Amino acid sequence: MEFLSGTTAKETMELHDLMAEECIGKTVRVNGAVHSVRDMGEVSFVVLRKREGLLQCVFEEGTSVLSAKEIREAQTVELTGTVEKDERAPHGIELRVTGGEILTTPYAPLPLPVGKWKMSTSLEAKLDSRSISLRNIRERAKFRIQEGIVRGFRDFLYSQQFTEIHTPKIGAKGAEGGSNIFRLEYFHHPAVLAQSPQFYKQMMVGVFDRVFETAPVFRAEKHNTKRHLNEYTSLDFEMGYIDSFHDIMEMETGFLQYTMRLLEKEYADELKILGVTLPDTERIPMVRFDTAKQLVSEKYNRKIKNPYDLEPEEETLIGQYFKEEYNADFVFVTHYPSKKRPFYAMDDPADPKFTLSFDLLFHGLEITTGGQRIHDYQELRRKIAARGMSEEGMDQYLDTFKYGMPPHGGLGIGLERLTMKLVREDNVRETTLFPRDLSRLEP
Amino acid sequence: MEFLSGTTAKETMELHDLMAEECIGKTVRVNGAVHSVRDMGEVSFVVLRKREGLLQCVFEEGTSVLSAKEIREAQTVELTGTVEKDERAPHGIELRVTGGEILTTPYAPLPLPVGKWKMSTSLEAKLDSRSISLRNIRERAKFRIQEGIVRGFRDFLYSQQFTEIHTPKIGAKGAEGGSNIFRLEYFHHPAVLAQSPQFYKQMMVGVFDRVFETAPVFRAEKHNTKRHLNEYTSLDFEMGYIDSFHDIMEMETGFLQYTMRLLEKEYADELKILGVTLPDTERIPMVRFDTAKQLVSEKYNRKIKNPYDLEPEEETLIGQYFKEEYNADFVFVTHYPSKKRPFYAMDDPADPKFTLSFDLLFHGLEITTGGQRIHDYQELRRKIAARGMSEEGMDQYLDTFKYGMPPHGGLGIGLERLTMKLVREDNVRETTLFPRDLSRLEP
Repeated sequence: MEFLSGTTAKETMELHDLMAEECIGKTVRVNGAVHSVRDMGEVSFVVLRKREGLLQCVFEEGTSVLSAKEIREAQTVELTGTVEKDERAPHGIELRVTGGEILTTPYAPLPLPVGKWKMSTSLEAKLDSRSISLRNIRERAKFRIQEGIVRGFRDFLYSQQFTEIHTPKIGAKGAEGGSNIFRLEYFHHPAVLAQSPQFYKQMMVGVFDRVFETAPVFRAEKHNTKRHLNEYTSLDFEMGYIDSFHDIMEMETGFLQYTMRLLEKEYADELKILGVTLPDTERIPMVRFDTAKQLVSEKYNRKIKNPYDLEPEEETLIGQYFKEEYNADFVFVTHYPSKKRPFYAMDDPADPKFTLSFDLLFHGLEITTGGQRIHDYQELRRKIAARGMSEEGMDQYLDTFKYGMPPHGGLGIGLERLTMKLVREDNVRETTLFPRDLSRLEP
Repeated sequence: MEFLSGTTAKETMELHDLMAEECIGKTVRVNGAVHSVRDMGEVSFVVLRKREGLLQCVFEEGTSVLSAKEIREAQTVELTGTVEKDERAPHGIELRVTGGEILTTPYAPLPLPVGKWKMSTSLEAKLDSRSISLRNIRERAKFRIQEGIVRGFRDFLYSQQFTEIHTPKIGAKGAEGGSNIFRLEYFHHPAVLAQSPQFYKQMMVGVFDRVFETAPVFRAEKHNTKRHLNEYTSLDFEMGYIDSFHDIMEMETGFLQYTMRLLEKEYADELKILGVTLPDTERIPMVRFDTAKQLVSEKYNRKIKNPYDLEPEEETLIGQYFKEEYNADFVFVTHYPSKKRPFYAMDDPADPKFTLSFDLLFHGLEITTGGQRIHDYQELRRKIAARGMSEEGMDQYLDTFKYGMPPHGGLGIGLERLTMKLVREDNVRETTLFPRDLSRLEP
């Protein structure tokens, strides 16, 4: 009988091993995809794309059993050669090729110039050939950064004793209600796709105290803007035993600080490729909704049209104001009007027209909505009734409160938006692997 | 202007801090939910449920400002007292209460005996009151173990240079095709819910070499069994530059070994609560599909009805066989018949009736399906044609291969099934927070 006993060491080497001092002068084997080929006559430079970055491979006439003439862009290959230092090459090393083999060969020339540093290809064209355009080093790097954000979110929350949960995306009723719900038939019953894990994460606070989820959410919104998606990844957490909704903002600040350090440490190559300067997360200003509107109105001579609503332009100006006045990249805007928040938001006892809630703006764009929730069963039912809503389909959610819940609150972060702002893109589709919008359902 | 600068230390203490030697005899504050109350006359024992476990709090008449008479099950409270050692109490400590306050009070007595060690409540009743039944310590522990599995999966794959991806769950076409697809309307276009991230993770192998995703998948299967769900969490990975499909099984073995060590180290309390003995992952036997059928047929006197199919009873017997003969908890069954595998599975060049694929059985239950995939564009198209399938809607998937792909393969693991087997449950709904099946769409 044959047995498997774990991963075995591979003969082929990865980039960071090759860069080690003891590797210089050694004969090694590497694999990768041919990213670009530059034929200089007697010498050819073949750049391999590996998962950690690019590796320059030099073919000199007569020294390699495998001829550079056989090498074409987008092949995958396995090469043998010696590692040498070369300051001009990516990562300061190159492979002097002595032999190798071609693993696979494409059937057509690439439709996009992925081997270039900047592709200058339109967003539409990039999305139409997503599995090709992402082979570009800069395009790919954005999603490595995105990984770092999710990883930072989870690792920080694990350290704060949160439990990760997985809640269903098909349900009988939407958490927020309204018209922005995708509907489907579930074995002859009407069903909806989850707009958020809101009800479930609250229900789980009574079990685990602190919970989080990183999962897709679905919004049938008919907005066709640079910042809206109809499916996105939501980073959600909910925590019990809070003293005030400031605890939630403090937790988010902690997450941002942890994540920036993680990116600096583990994703330095990608930050460099994209030329990203990390934002300041050491101290994040906090301003009331009404005060923010007032400040912006005064400084930029803008009339307040509706004291209970925030227009996108106002958000942008609040971002600008805090950058100019406090050199702040982020700002927490607190105490949103009650009528703009869902029924489960806790009203401010000092003035019930406003809620104990907040948005976090990053350079003037909302990337988080959060706040304290109502934890008292009767208060929750009163608010549902006052809004003219029905309790139908909310039995288990409401029962959770009937049988006791601690004071709690939480938030949801839009992963693609946070990534977009971090890497300084201006369309959220640039930082979404396969975006879903009003006109895009493929690939 | 007010600023936030990260999480601030809380006055209230958590269980592991309380258990520290220097805490004994100190006056502390703790919060939690009242898990059970035992009134012994002059002394009352109130057990608090905290996120790390249970804490016994002792009220002696006359020593506490807050009377034990006010304490009721399912309240949330904040108590003050001194920490003392007591071998009979959970974790060997108790709190001698001197005062405190009630944070919240329930409106009705709990419908389930969650304070008991074993609830002996039916699965249906537990699911009907999910947010209550999970407050039981044993019920809750299963999902802490589940967290450990997902965490182990990700952390191990990060260490193996995989990149995490987030692929869309709404699409124009299912990866596997067939009738088991949930359909919905997407802005007046027909759409489906993803059965798996198969196409996307393959497309991303050409970008990142190695990718993984932990996300929900949707199967409109009409099976009503103990091991089927219509929505579950799939742990998927896909890796390029493999030498053979053994690389994939080695990676999975590595994941299992890493995860068992993580559970042992970080989830010891939960393993103890559930009385779980971790399975052996050091060496996992590997057997061909046809050989496995033969071995089971001989040993258990069972006639082989169909040489190209594996019945659930046969799976169970294969598990039994390898437990009896090799004391193995897991077994890789390889070379599944081509007609039982999807079109993208790579056939075995030595005998194209079989594929370079595998299932992993855990005590006789399939928890993983994986294998090598076809990477040659024309071979893929030939197989699609040979199956009488249409290429419609697969343009971007197929283009990925036209423009060059490395040899690759991957797998998908059913998280709820793996959890179920690990904690020795016999119904997958026991290890699903909010199961979705033929008859259950709520909560």
